[in-house]
Amino acid sequence: MRLATLRDGTRDGLLAVVRGDGEALTPAGAVAGTLQQALDGWAEVEPRLRALAADLEAGRAPARKLDPRALHSPLPRAYEWVDGSTFLNHTRLVRRARGALPPPTLETEPLVYQGGGGVLLAPTDPIPLGDPGWGLDLEGEVCVILGDVPMGTRAAGAEGCIRLLCLANDLTFRNLVPTEMEKGFGFFQSKPATAFSPFAVTPDELGPAWRGGRLHLRITVRLNGALLGDPDAGPEMHFSFHDLVQHLARTRAFTPGTILGSGTVSNADEARGVTCLQERRVRETIGAGQPQTPFLRAGDRVEIEMRDGAGRNLFGTIDQVVVP
Amino acid sequence: MRLATLRDGTRDGLLAVVRGDGEALTPAGAVAGTLQQALDGWAEVEPRLRALAADLEAGRAPARKLDPRALHSPLPRAYEWVDGSTFLNHTRLVRRARGALPPPTLETEPLVYQGGGGVLLAPTDPIPLGDPGWGLDLEGEVCVILGDVPMGTRAAGAEGCIRLLCLANDLTFRNLVPTEMEKGFGFFQSKPATAFSPFAVTPDELGPAWRGGRLHLRITVRLNGALLGDPDAGPEMHFSFHDLVQHLARTRAFTPGTILGSGTVSNADEARGVTCLQERRVRETIGAGQPQTPFLRAGDRVEIEMRDGAGRNLFGTIDQVVVP
Repeated sequence: MRLATLRDGTRDGLLAVVRGDGEALTPAGAVAGTLQQALDGWAEVEPRLRALAADLEAGRAPARKLDPRALHSPLPRAYEWVDGSTFLNHTRLVRRARGALPPPTLETEPLVYQGGGGVLLAPTDPIPLGDPGWGLDLEGEVCVILGDVPMGTRAAGAEGCIRLLCLANDLTFRNLVPTEMEKGFGFFQSKPATAFSPFAVTPDELGPAWRGGRLHLRITVRLNGALLGDPDAGPEMHFSFHDLVQHLARTRAFTPGTILGSGTVSNADEARGVTCLQERRVRETIGAGQPQTPFLRAGDRVEIEMRDGAGRNLFGTIDQVVVP
Repeated sequence: MRLATLRDGTRDGLLAVVRGDGEALTPAGAVAGTLQQALDGWAEVEPRLRALAADLEAGRAPARKLDPRALHSPLPRAYEWVDGSTFLNHTRLVRRARGALPPPTLETEPLVYQGGGGVLLAPTDPIPLGDPGWGLDLEGEVCVILGDVPMGTRAAGAEGCIRLLCLANDLTFRNLVPTEMEKGFGFFQSKPATAFSPFAVTPDELGPAWRGGRLHLRITVRLNGALLGDPDAGPEMHFSFHDLVQHLARTRAFTPGTILGSGTVSNADEARGVTCLQERRVRETIGAGQPQTPFLRAGDRVEIEMRDGAGRNLFGTIDQVVVP
């Protein structure tokens, strides 16, 4: 089942079920008005949403042509947005560029940070450039949307907490990071609002590509129409989403609608390219002494998506243009 | 006007208006079901809540005896919980204890971190001790609850974004902090769920004590009935809430219901005591070479409140017991 949120002028939008071909949807307001409401009462709501999806597929529910611009982020605001850094190839390269060593626990304890989820960007929302000197970068990520997570949840029980998956464009002002790192309190101004994919998808929709808490498919990132990278989001995700859930829940509980990100997808094989500009800049610096790729500029277009073996665009496309 | 949230078995509770004497309340469901709903539509909802408050005062609305144990945190879950560290006396002392220098921008740029607000503690909820080796500490803080904050909001315009004030007991596992600091991604496991005061209060309720984005009253913290400290939350708050709002809004916007904390209230005058154990331990270390005060233990009782000149308990009392 694939879910989306229609912009309807309200803060949380209107929940909709997406047809299998991705060409149409049907509003789900009669079942649950918003995705947050659906997640809050998932045990009762999910079967009713699945029945609506079956009706849509069979032509028994009213179908509305799907216009990506009419969609908000699946959760226009989320109670928590927690982002990991599980692709160690990326972590090592980026820290190297900052002249910082990776923490000694890099391979044994997940790196996560608390993001701000109160205002999120729709998949087709413009990206505010801010000050061009801040060094705006994109990051292609896989995310899970959680249900209730009791404190002390272990990795072995984490699959039952995962309700949906989606993609993110986790934006970062790279040049604001070093000062915030130095202050020791984590990212804040360096992380503007994050954008999410049009659809949030139940794990069963992904078939065997979703296994062991990892999504074994390639994420595709394009910049101004040219491929930036298409790394596999599965094998090199050092800590699985299950591991991350265990790490998060060590000292507190989480409410439904918490979004948990993988961090920038990154493969050691250079042929797979990158899903953020910083990583390419680091590779350029290693190869040629200095970066050649500039950060994002006004007018740049970023597209992020993920297709299965049959070429189906699983989450729809994040398709954003940078604006001054 | 003072607002509270009744526990009613739902995730977000039921909004209520508190009578002036703090002895009774009336459910406000006919105006707005939850505090989040009230904040989302504040311009229309506030006058109706004030009318209800007037009716309650005049005996025209049904009064229910106020039982603090029936109350949840004003926002049982908040879209964002952002905490500052604006009392520089505290920042300097605690960093000194960690053997870390304060950042060079200490006096010119606010320190804030992104907390997790998806699951918050009620004012009388037990505090889970976790592992006694984690070093559980309390922190008495003043907070504001924000309305819509557009990106780029300046300090001069921040007062208009502040809807309510409340107190917090910001719990910290002190012994988990150094490892997380070293990783550079900010606090995560070291910050369990935060507790908030019974009442959230409109700024006008505080009279001249609320001025310039600071609350000029003493916060009182007791541990097992003995006074731990009663520092003034006003003059030594180096950055005002207005300054903090400007800092937050530099690169993104905030949704209503964002809670913003002052950080541990702390005065340079030792006679005012402390509002967290770490600060007392640091003072002990400076005086006697090592800390004598232990961190919180099972059975410890923490009380946090703030009274005005007339002795009125403005926010009600955070009254929690530590449990294994």
